[in-house]
Amino acid sequence: MPDLDKDYDVIIIGGGPAGLSAGIYAARDRLKTVLVEMGMVGGQIANAERVDNYPGYPDGVGGVELGELMHAQAMKYGLETLMDEVTGVELREGRKVVKTAGGELSARALIIASGSERQKLNVSGEDRFTGRGVSFCATCDAAFFVDKTVAVVGGGNAAITEALHLTKFASRVIVIHRRDQLRATRIMQERAFANRKIEFLWNAVVDEVLGDDFVRSLRLRRLTTDDHFSLDVDGVFVSIGFRPNTRFLKNFVSVDAAGAIITNNRMETGLSGVFAAGDIRHESVRQVIAAAGDGAIAAIRAEEYIAGHD
Amino acid sequence: MPDLDKDYDVIIIGGGPAGLSAGIYAARDRLKTVLVEMGMVGGQIANAERVDNYPGYPDGVGGVELGELMHAQAMKYGLETLMDEVTGVELREGRKVVKTAGGELSARALIIASGSERQKLNVSGEDRFTGRGVSFCATCDAAFFVDKTVAVVGGGNAAITEALHLTKFASRVIVIHRRDQLRATRIMQERAFANRKIEFLWNAVVDEVLGDDFVRSLRLRRLTTDDHFSLDVDGVFVSIGFRPNTRFLKNFVSVDAAGAIITNNRMETGLSGVFAAGDIRHESVRQVIAAAGDGAIAAIRAEEYIAGHD
Repeated sequence: MPDLDKDYDVIIIGGGPAGLSAGIYAARDRLKTVLVEMGMVGGQIANAERVDNYPGYPDGVGGVELGELMHAQAMKYGLETLMDEVTGVELREGRKVVKTAGGELSARALIIASGSERQKLNVSGEDRFTGRGVSFCATCDAAFFVDKTVAVVGGGNAAITEALHLTKFASRVIVIHRRDQLRATRIMQERAFANRKIEFLWNAVVDEVLGDDFVRSLRLRRLTTDDHFSLDVDGVFVSIGFRPNTRFLKNFVSVDAAGAIITNNRMETGLSGVFAAGDIRHESVRQVIAAAGDGAIAAIRAEEYIAGHD
Repeated sequence: MPDLDKDYDVIIIGGGPAGLSAGIYAARDRLKTVLVEMGMVGGQIANAERVDNYPGYPDGVGGVELGELMHAQAMKYGLETLMDEVTGVELREGRKVVKTAGGELSARALIIASGSERQKLNVSGEDRFTGRGVSFCATCDAAFFVDKTVAVVGGGNAAITEALHLTKFASRVIVIHRRDQLRATRIMQERAFANRKIEFLWNAVVDEVLGDDFVRSLRLRRLTTDDHFSLDVDGVFVSIGFRPNTRFLKNFVSVDAAGAIITNNRMETGLSGVFAAGDIRHESVRQVIAAAGDGAIAAIRAEEYIAGHD
């Protein structure tokens, strides 16, 4: 016999902007809704000192503060929040069952909004200087580097897009890549090679990020010779990929090669009543506003699904 | 010879949340960007006394105020705003040319965010009581009608979804439909018929909305007999469709049967370098947060398009 306290209309996995926005909409629509988050509510924005590009805050807003504001808004409408780790998801007689370390929950609709993790360099100084010169998002942080020297680590389309974007702000952009050629498309490569602000360091990796209050230099290693050398920079943008947090899903829904969930414009996955929102989606632009938009759509479509299915 | 002052990287048509969010992103990305709006910046939110479901404002925010905040944010990053009416759009040698009453503009990328208009009843009292009992969005306004009597005008899926949603708040929901049967899907109809809070007035239309400070009653007409009668209500939700503002587009991009623009998840229309965002899109949920998310995605994809095309 099911524990009635654990039966919901909607379960949301993940407490970042996508999950919180879904929570605001679902709870305000009077759906019995629980959000499961294993860490801090706010998701990746909690790592951002300041968010300048969330529409509606012309002077910017603190990352932690924005997460707290969204959470307060959702709780005001009755969202329940459970601090727990999701270990698995399955369907049981049409209900969506979410397994956590503390037990099982079930619901009529499920919104997966567990985000994605930036692939880190995993070198000394990286964590310490994150937000102090180390960045994972040129769209977010390029404006802080006007007339500065910055490095971009990576060689794919994302890295070259970041480098080109940075040339609008920085005076010098050095692309550090572990191979001797880029993976980016030919047209992106041509544009990068033609840009006088962009330089390349081939066959090189970052071994350490150094600085005082802020990043000052990188300790690099040339892979072909194993020589170490130093590069003075004011910032470093790490663009070596993302890892969607979909481990607990196993083969539950369709994902792309990188593990990101494939949805249509309605945030529907291939499974009826299962939706995905935010950075966990295929081709997400990884911006707070887009994730929050996704969350609202997912909640509205979840309500329609519930209305039409029982 | 082109007037250089009228050549842009990006032209945005429409100054609602989708266009303003695109403007924030495009201008912050240092793209030379102009937003063309013929009325008041803010779009449909300017009609909302208060927006309670925009994530990040737990106490709500005035509709006009939210539009002004977004506009200030975009202007801070250099967005130009042109008050003019768009009369046509065409491609000329790869550039996107926007014709306005005051002349022509051209750009490398175009973001269409001109929204959609709610189909109105066009009866006496409707405009006067909009925001004072007359609403076009149950998701937005249902919470103001706890234990009240409300009418829903319409018979399609949207109207029945609104009616079902309203039963979670109102004590009595009267669906007024001009025919003797609903257009909504069978399962939606069954749910509506089974709901004890929902009543139906068939073959009836609203001739007038009456009240004092707020809606108090509707003057109705029975189409089968042409009799007039009165119905006391605290609110009326008009759900008889939307009309996308795409008249100026003519066959420029692909639209659905209702005239809404079809895009993929990247906000790309079928035309290279032409994007659409917000309520003008097929299957839009018509919420500020979703429109703003669309706008950000369109601007980011427009920047990528420009980087890869010249």
